Amino acid sequence: MKKIIKNGTIVTAADTFFGDVLIDDGIIVMIGVDLESEGAELVDATGCYVFPGGIDPHTHLDMPFGGTMTADDFETGTIAAAFGGTTTVIDFCITNKSKPLGEWVKVWHEKAKGKAVIDYGFHLMITDANDGVLAELPGIIENEGITSLKVFMAYKNVFQADDGTLFKTLLLAKEQGALVMVHAENGDVIDYLVNKALEEGNTDPIYHALTRPSVLEGEATGRAADLAGMADSQLYVVHVTCEEAVNKIAEARSKGLKVFGETCPQYLVLDVTELEKPNFEGAKYVWSPPLREKRHQQALWDALWNGQLQTVGSDQCSFNFKGQKDLGLGDFSKIPNGGPTIEDRFTILYSEGVEKGRLTLNKFVDVISTTSAKLFGLFPQKGTIAIGSDADIVIFDPSVERTLSAETHHMNVDYNPYEGMKVKGEPVSVLVRGEFVIRDKQYVGEAGSGQYLQRKRFAAADRIPVKKHPVGGGLG
Amino acid sequence: MKKIIKNGTIVTAADTFFGDVLIDDGIIVMIGVDLESEGAELVDATGCYVFPGGIDPHTHLDMPFGGTMTADDFETGTIAAAFGGTTTVIDFCITNKSKPLGEWVKVWHEKAKGKAVIDYGFHLMITDANDGVLAELPGIIENEGITSLKVFMAYKNVFQADDGTLFKTLLLAKEQGALVMVHAENGDVIDYLVNKALEEGNTDPIYHALTRPSVLEGEATGRAADLAGMADSQLYVVHVTCEEAVNKIAEARSKGLKVFGETCPQYLVLDVTELEKPNFEGAKYVWSPPLREKRHQQALWDALWNGQLQTVGSDQCSFNFKGQKDLGLGDFSKIPNGGPTIEDRFTILYSEGVEKGRLTLNKFVDVISTTSAKLFGLFPQKGTIAIGSDADIVIFDPSVERTLSAETHHMNVDYNPYEGMKVKGEPVSVLVRGEFVIRDKQYVGEAGSGQYLQRKRFAAADRIPVKKHPVGGGLG
Amino acid sequence: MKKIIKNGTIVTAADTFFGDVLIDDGIIVMIGVDLESEGAELVDATGCYVFPGGIDPHTHLDMPFGGTMTADDFETGTIAAAFGGTTTVIDFCITNKSKPLGEWVKVWHEKAKGKAVIDYGFHLMITDANDGVLAELPGIIENEGITSLKVFMAYKNVFQADDGTLFKTLLLAKEQGALVMVHAENGDVIDYLVNKALEEGNTDPIYHALTRPSVLEGEATGRAADLAGMADSQLYVVHVTCEEAVNKIAEARSKGLKVFGETCPQYLVLDVTELEKPNFEGAKYVWSPPLREKRHQQALWDALWNGQLQTVGSDQCSFNFKGQKDLGLGDFSKIPNGGPTIEDRFTILYSEGVEKGRLTLNKFVDVISTTSAKLFGLFPQKGTIAIGSDADIVIFDPSVERTLSAETHHMNVDYNPYEGMKVKGEPVSVLVRGEFVIRDKQYVGEAGSGQYLQRKRFAAADRIPVKKHPVGGGLG
Amino acid sequence: MKKIIKNGTIVTAADTFFGDVLIDDGIIVMIGVDLESEGAELVDATGCYVFPGGIDPHTHLDMPFGGTMTADDFETGTIAAAFGGTTTVIDFCITNKSKPLGEWVKVWHEKAKGKAVIDYGFHLMITDANDGVLAELPGIIENEGITSLKVFMAYKNVFQADDGTLFKTLLLAKEQGALVMVHAENGDVIDYLVNKALEEGNTDPIYHALTRPSVLEGEATGRAADLAGMADSQLYVVHVTCEEAVNKIAEARSKGLKVFGETCPQYLVLDVTELEKPNFEGAKYVWSPPLREKRHQQALWDALWNGQLQTVGSDQCSFNFKGQKDLGLGDFSKIPNGGPTIEDRFTILYSEGVEKGRLTLNKFVDVISTTSAKLFGLFPQKGTIAIGSDADIVIFDPSVERTLSAETHHMNVDYNPYEGMKVKGEPVSVLVRGEFVIRDKQYVGEAGSGQYLQRKRFAAADRIPVKKHPVGGGLG
Repeated sequence: MKKIIKNGTIVTAADTFFGDVLIDDGIIVMIGVDLESEGAELVDATGCYVFPGGIDPHTHLDMPFGGTMTADDFETGTIAAAFGGTTTVIDFCITNKSKPLGEWVKVWHEKAKGKAVIDYGFHLMITDANDGVLAELPGIIENEGITSLKVFMAYKNVFQADDGTLFKTLLLAKEQGALVMVHAENGDVIDYLVNKALEEGNTDPIYHALTRPSVLEGEATGRAADLAGMADSQLYVVHVTCEEAVNKIAEARSKGLKVFGETCPQYLVLDVTELEKPNFEGAKYVWSPPLREKRHQQALWDALWNGQLQTVGSDQCSFNFKGQKDLGLGDFSKIPNGGPTIEDRFTILYSEGVEKGRLTLNKFVDVISTTSAKLFGLFPQKGTIAIGSDADIVIFDPSVERTLSAETHHMNVDYNPYEGMKVKGEPVSVLVRGEFVIRDKQYVGEAGSGQYLQRKRFAAADRIPVKKHPVGGGLG
Repeated sequence: MKKIIKNGTIVTAADTFFGDVLIDDGIIVMIGVDLESEGAELVDATGCYVFPGGIDPHTHLDMPFGGTMTADDFETGTIAAAFGGTTTVIDFCITNKSKPLGEWVKVWHEKAKGKAVIDYGFHLMITDANDGVLAELPGIIENEGITSLKVFMAYKNVFQADDGTLFKTLLLAKEQGALVMVHAENGDVIDYLVNKALEEGNTDPIYHALTRPSVLEGEATGRAADLAGMADSQLYVVHVTCEEAVNKIAEARSKGLKVFGETCPQYLVLDVTELEKPNFEGAKYVWSPPLREKRHQQALWDALWNGQLQTVGSDQCSFNFKGQKDLGLGDFSKIPNGGPTIEDRFTILYSEGVEKGRLTLNKFVDVISTTSAKLFGLFPQKGTIAIGSDADIVIFDPSVERTLSAETHHMNVDYNPYEGMKVKGEPVSVLVRGEFVIRDKQYVGEAGSGQYLQRKRFAAADRIPVKKHPVGGGLG
Repeated sequence: MKKIIKNGTIVTAADTFFGDVLIDDGIIVMIGVDLESEGAELVDATGCYVFPGGIDPHTHLDMPFGGTMTADDFETGTIAAAFGGTTTVIDFCITNKSKPLGEWVKVWHEKAKGKAVIDYGFHLMITDANDGVLAELPGIIENEGITSLKVFMAYKNVFQADDGTLFKTLLLAKEQGALVMVHAENGDVIDYLVNKALEEGNTDPIYHALTRPSVLEGEATGRAADLAGMADSQLYVVHVTCEEAVNKIAEARSKGLKVFGETCPQYLVLDVTELEKPNFEGAKYVWSPPLREKRHQQALWDALWNGQLQTVGSDQCSFNFKGQKDLGLGDFSKIPNGGPTIEDRFTILYSEGVEKGRLTLNKFVDVISTTSAKLFGLFPQKGTIAIGSDADIVIFDPSVERTLSAETHHMNVDYNPYEGMKVKGEPVSVLVRGEFVIRDKQYVGEAGSGQYLQRKRFAAADRIPVKKHPVGGGLG
Repeated sequence: MKKIIKNGTIVTAADTFFGDVLIDDGIIVMIGVDLESEGAELVDATGCYVFPGGIDPHTHLDMPFGGTMTADDFETGTIAAAFGGTTTVIDFCITNKSKPLGEWVKVWHEKAKGKAVIDYGFHLMITDANDGVLAELPGIIENEGITSLKVFMAYKNVFQADDGTLFKTLLLAKEQGALVMVHAENGDVIDYLVNKALEEGNTDPIYHALTRPSVLEGEATGRAADLAGMADSQLYVVHVTCEEAVNKIAEARSKGLKVFGETCPQYLVLDVTELEKPNFEGAKYVWSPPLREKRHQQALWDALWNGQLQTVGSDQCSFNFKGQKDLGLGDFSKIPNGGPTIEDRFTILYSEGVEKGRLTLNKFVDVISTTSAKLFGLFPQKGTIAIGSDADIVIFDPSVERTLSAETHHMNVDYNPYEGMKVKGEPVSVLVRGEFVIRDKQYVGEAGSGQYLQRKRFAAADRIPVKKHPVGGGLG
């Protein structure tokens, strides 16, 4: 079955042009003006941008945390993602030492299967790079196509790994062509600060931010970059929030190190004062790392502009205000960390980035989709509008003015951290592999239609062979 | 007349895919697989890359310098450029105070008219931003589409402008949407060092390098960036050669300043030891700034990779070894500055960059073509393979192994600075606006067929309106 | 005639101890507890600090500027200096090309002779390092003991030298053992900004600051440091006002360059808001470089603490508010630049530095006296309390609380920029070469008793020979 | 009993002058020319420097390590120190969790008592800042005068503390006025690298250096500085060896942080190639951190010159080559870490620093003695030649040329790492509190004559009260 998306302004990470896109069997097969094809369904995109589907490289769906589960699972989460213009998520497969990594991957497959309405992959968390883990990993990378490994430098006694594990993971990643992701905060010091705050009776949400100062994120980021340089490996720093961390990444990249950074919409548009909201509402804004002073926002926007940061993830990790966030009433350390951004990531970046002149349209596509595809081994299947790529497409109307709100969002959570924020633009229709998941702002997808993505190995600057179906990524 | 370029691997600054390109009336109208169009000429690109034509943002054709004229004019120079895969040049319109700027632009039009075989634009040199110049500029920008202004911080008593002129030019550029280009070296100190060397009897070519140390380039680059920041304007540093200058550009960009940098093939692959060649052969390698110690090459490659430098120009400025370079026998300061790179720029970057794993294919296209188009107001007419763009296309065979040499090059100059260098890849056919200029490695163009390009104004992150023929640039 | 200063707390750049100082024939000959010496006059210092006399490395006495003369000459200026605890000044011998440098030195000798009540030396200003100047300098350095040369990077068309002159002066200084001093601001750009402000009708004193932004000081400081590094010479940046300049000095020093920096009390305790005072009172605060935003003060204090800045000068250059500063009514560029600080420099540093815990007592002595002596070839004759040194001594009562004011100051000028500022501490008695100039807060000196100081050549780390009267400086 | 040291060139951290020093009852009571005092013993210092006794802030005497004990105990070690010109050592009291800190302090008192021939103090090692330790520390600081606490970031599973302990120690130090010392290397990664090297059969001494790259020292140094800044506390980084670590310290100090750094003679004059010596001789050069590539030496000298590093310690930790170092035959990780430098520290610094023009005489005194006294609460009792200070004095003949060698040294160890090195200068006589320990190059001291030093608390810039016996330190 064919479709032609007609008369849109098609945007890629490099180009912006007017035209049509012909889809056949879920694949983009032709781009041009006034395309015709017998039997093809015509989809009007007049007055709209035609973007590649968003890729969210950082989600936590159906995840246990602090004795509760995220409010969104692979069904509600991916439906919301699709409404927001995202057609691929890479979710974190959480592990612990109680069973082999392969068992955890199975658990995550179970969570997604029959639920996801968009395509998905998994990152794999490493807590201890012991001999067993190191022996098991190559098989998982090869057979599951899981080519990114996550190490936590924070959450002492929970997720936190030591520097030896980080370094060993970097070495293995170099050898195997995987990308190491770090949560970069100094967990030891945070642990002390949190305990001290609680001992002193400082239990309100704002203390979540006050016990995780930005210098600890900068420190850990620099440490991880130093180790990546020593290992001659590749590093991806998730959820960068502050100038200190940006500087460390920039410094590493200036030395030619393969260090990459992701930020999130919450750090670009919200600030630490949200945590001071009365009636425990500050708990809605508890992310780790925390929201920062407003001045950091400019540093993050500048870094997206100049290329020191390369991607924007949601760090989707939703918990209801009632019944979940309130586990932390009287003890901020018990507030489940995280918030719902999977749905609004795409539009916030467009509205605050493109419409406010901070990012070009092409750079917007790059950070919201293309570079994640390249870094995580999905390109060119995902992340662009090009011949041979999956027809993951967002038809986006930039003329809409709307207000973000829990009342209208589709995430399975009782609040929206961007409540009341006015944005420009809205995804009108969203296709995954050529099939509508959202059509004229209505969900028309099917639970379980999302496919698991085996991802290619990391390659910093792979040359792509000249052949019929060139593969491979690279990201220079 | 239509053409279809068949079965190539099409590469843009973002994408790499297999397919065909349909050209109609000089414009790219369709991209896809197995394209057909009645009456279209079929051009086989099997086994080849299909690149956007190279844009050389830095040439000096038919230019007077030191009492002589460059060996290549707009005919020989653009033919050589075409052989090398370049379909657009932006040449420097040299001026002095003896007549209004507008008169100089006329002179340059005369030089190009009837000669150029590829498209071309002009940058305009500013030596003294006096009231007359400032009054005349807006008209030239508007009417001639000359939206980039060049200021020299070196060549004392010849081209050199003072910091007041640089600053005033930056202010005007901000107001008018132009991009200020600087040759960043401290001319005052160089002038002293050159005179001192000559007084001491140090007349050999190597003294050209020894009297222009890299710290003076770093200093001037930082100074220009500081002034650009103060003016809240935009700056493009031409021919960056050294780590010091890269660092200053990186520092400025980290602060969010709109500062951009270009390097050249000569600085990426040659080093200062060339100037020590016996029999005055060192004179062939006299560029300003000079070739540097080998260690700087890695800094330049890293900077292209991490985005601190954005473009690669040739700084084409050819003089024959016999009869021109030898004006400097016995006095290195009389050696005409510059060399012939217009033809080999494209292949050297491909061979040393892509084939050696330093740059992805996409980044190669970006630095050799796309970003120059965006920075200099030519995008999306030039600089990409996209619907609606000019069909400026290079069919490039990566399997060829060849040796660069004056014996085989097409520049009108008696030596090649890359003599004997082995490279991979060769442009097979080159089209400008859909017409062959080079076909199967033969020149089939016509003098004067190149068109003058009125360029759009500079826009750092312009949002492109959603309409039938979106225009504008932006470069985030 | 002998004197014993009894029971004071003696402070040097290294030490703080309780004791007596025996002076014989103007020289310190003994330090100890309970000293006795027949016939010696006893001077009680109980409860007081006994400091080496302050050395002010930066004064402009009896200087023509903008069509007027500084309000203080060598008599009123040095009397005020003595009241404030300063026993040596190094004044700038201003020159222009109208006559040989030697003639200007004579002029300056004339100004000082018969007037100065404390010892003095001269720095020599260089506007154009032409062959005549370069030929004349070695003789002046040798015969006059003038071992510091001042180059202005600002005051276009008045004092400003070009970078060639700065570089040549640095080379000569290296060869001759002199120290090059720079006023580091980009004069070309300032010239433009000033003219533009005036054209736009912005004539108030605040525009003096707004037309000399700190980035232009940082730029020029970095430029001068780069040239000093190239020349392998030594550089002293006068009146550093801002974080940008401190950073450039620190960066140079980190590379091992012999770059030094001076700040002034006005930049440590006043800020740019002073220039906004109504009724033209802002004119009282017109220094060049201008006062800065308050945040720069911390950077300056930090730099004194960590050694990135080494000295504090007054930049004494006084003009009456009535009759002189008001030359700039309606045109800020006509306001004579400078202010009166020669008297309060010492106490302000003590009060704001030592009493507020920012500097140790030893560091205070170092920056107010010792390091200036070492850098400018006066050590150990001046700058310390040690055996064999001149008995230039300040008996300073730290218990006094007083208010700075034009009503009580001794400078010949009708206002005090620190009017109303409360300080702790006051010089009680001041001796020069063992003779009281100030005794119990009364002037008891004699015009002309100050001696001209031939200074030694600069030596970065000279080893001092072991002999009876060791000489030489060094400043590591 | 009085003594007069006659006709020497007396040098302090600020001053250099010719004169005599009168000592009464172990205290310096008078300094001057031609001093006389009835009954005083005259000590001729003609042709010699009279320096304050060296203070070695970093020794390990009688210390267990790796199953053996250092070759030098408090008797042989302090005799050797005295021969070398050092009159005070501060030794590390090693602890572990098996008993309270106070018990360990007793152990260390036992080690020193009856043995030391010069004065000594203790630093206290903290491995785990648990509640018991934090409760015990204030009493020890108060009662023992131990005002410096050492935390190891390396030696995993032996001495290594985690970042939480480092941070808590910094907080306690701020509150109590103590100085936290760190061994800054990333122990987790080193542990991995060491194990991996051994597994791969790389057992030679050079692998000690190869498994501890400088980037891991830079990383840990930056981390410690970040934590010190957060804690608003003070930090002293011991044995800095490399440019990376110097840069981190400099960066911290530029921000106004109270971060200090020590280097050691071995890092200033030896390099990593020593570890490649055949016949296991490389083991003699096994220090941690290891010797570095030669290029780092210049960075260390520059840092002493510009004040980014402030002290030089010996890190004395001697093991015999035969019987101790050879424990590591076949396994470099078993080589006891450390070497003998307590004796030659003083002369090496003089010879390589002062004689080679890298340091002034005053800076030499500063780094070899004065600043250690100020930082560690011993000033002005120790560290200078001033009225009221202990008469700890070195009479040093700069005219001697000699060769360092195990054959002539006085340390109880069978090799000298500087074997064959030619130096200028030698301590002729050394006095502690006015008593000769070395006289005319002969040991004349007495075991047990050294006194334990209760040290004052840390004060970054304490103002010293004006009183009869001013006390306190400060170090700005």
